[in-house]
Amino acid sequence: MDTKIEPWAEPRKAKKRVRRTRSSVQKIPQCRTDERKARVRRVVERRQRDLRLIVANVHDPHNVSAMLRSCDAFGVNAVDLYYTDTKFPNLGKKSSASAKKWVEQRRHTEPSVLIGGLRSKGYQILSTGFSERAQPLTAWDLTKPTAIMLGNEHRGVDPELDALVPDQIFIPMMGMVQSLNVSVAAAVILYEAFRQRDAAGMYDLPAYDPDEIDAMVEDWCRR
Amino acid sequence: MDTKIEPWAEPRKAKKRVRRTRSSVQKIPQCRTDERKARVRRVVERRQRDLRLIVANVHDPHNVSAMLRSCDAFGVNAVDLYYTDTKFPNLGKKSSASAKKWVEQRRHTEPSVLIGGLRSKGYQILSTGFSERAQPLTAWDLTKPTAIMLGNEHRGVDPELDALVPDQIFIPMMGMVQSLNVSVAAAVILYEAFRQRDAAGMYDLPAYDPDEIDAMVEDWCRR
Repeated sequence: MDTKIEPWAEPRKAKKRVRRTRSSVQKIPQCRTDERKARVRRVVERRQRDLRLIVANVHDPHNVSAMLRSCDAFGVNAVDLYYTDTKFPNLGKKSSASAKKWVEQRRHTEPSVLIGGLRSKGYQILSTGFSERAQPLTAWDLTKPTAIMLGNEHRGVDPELDALVPDQIFIPMMGMVQSLNVSVAAAVILYEAFRQRDAAGMYDLPAYDPDEIDAMVEDWCRR
Repeated sequence: MDTKIEPWAEPRKAKKRVRRTRSSVQKIPQCRTDERKARVRRVVERRQRDLRLIVANVHDPHNVSAMLRSCDAFGVNAVDLYYTDTKFPNLGKKSSASAKKWVEQRRHTEPSVLIGGLRSKGYQILSTGFSERAQPLTAWDLTKPTAIMLGNEHRGVDPELDALVPDQIFIPMMGMVQSLNVSVAAAVILYEAFRQRDAAGMYDLPAYDPDEIDAMVEDWCRR
């Protein structure tokens, strides 16, 4: 069997472990090769500064992990975690294959701070829902600064957030079952955002200044 | 909190149970209302006869269930299950909210029968992969009769299938992690197929003959 990387295969565990001595533990890890550094730079240059995901009381850590993986894949740089009824999710250890390491996480417990903060930066905020005000995902211009909000697996977006976010987005569904898994829904919406932004050339020109990119590359190489 | 149905929310458990007596057990269930029947008909009319998913040795039943749910959502009528190293997946009980009930499943253990059968019906068969022959998903015309093949979470598509399916499709990924969850990947590819087919008006005109549709509606009402 050939050893190609399947686009959907689970990441393999790292095969080599660096044996740590007392002195090596103190060293700051760096990108070991120029190739690695170039790869990090290429990913950083494609990061979409103004595309965000709000994960609001999504309980299953597998769902949250899958959502972070989709964020990484489609160039979302930061995720807003809003947790009011449980602790913030424990996303497991930071393996090099984990998207947790590559997607910034910001923690929130105050709806007005979360939503007000994004609005003050000019974001359109789209909550997933099926009310009369909901529009299908292709009807929204997702090349604008956009934050997509997904809520709990069972009860949806909580009322205190719903009250602050009138705009709703939905995935057209042709079937008998009126729902998709929350991480699947996040991936489909982020893919549509990717598709629109890719068509507009937004992955070809970096969203960050050269200085910011250099600093991000240095930082990521240390992770 | 309002009671809108979130597009991604987990299906709720049925609230009512029909109390079964010896006589009621014998009755064949029917669509109880004209509304229900009309809804079933609307879904059947949108089913895409020539869009298929091949699920090849995907082990986690949660992934298989999520894939069936995405099939139902985007109008895929039948799934080919190929299992050679474990039993066919146990997809739990047939709750009314389960996509298992609405997506036909065909079981295979012979690669040549599976692939040859689809080819003889004129299907293009696309395996997920990153080889030199792989093309991004927007480069494929998914309005053609198409079967998408996804393989095991860890080892990908098995060599005996890979040898029969040279055409590969991949989801462009902009991140550090080179993979997506298998059910997420299936959903994104099926969404792209939906998007192309919807733009071509393929959900507006039924793929089945009026007689077939009537028979399917009767059958589905009995489920």
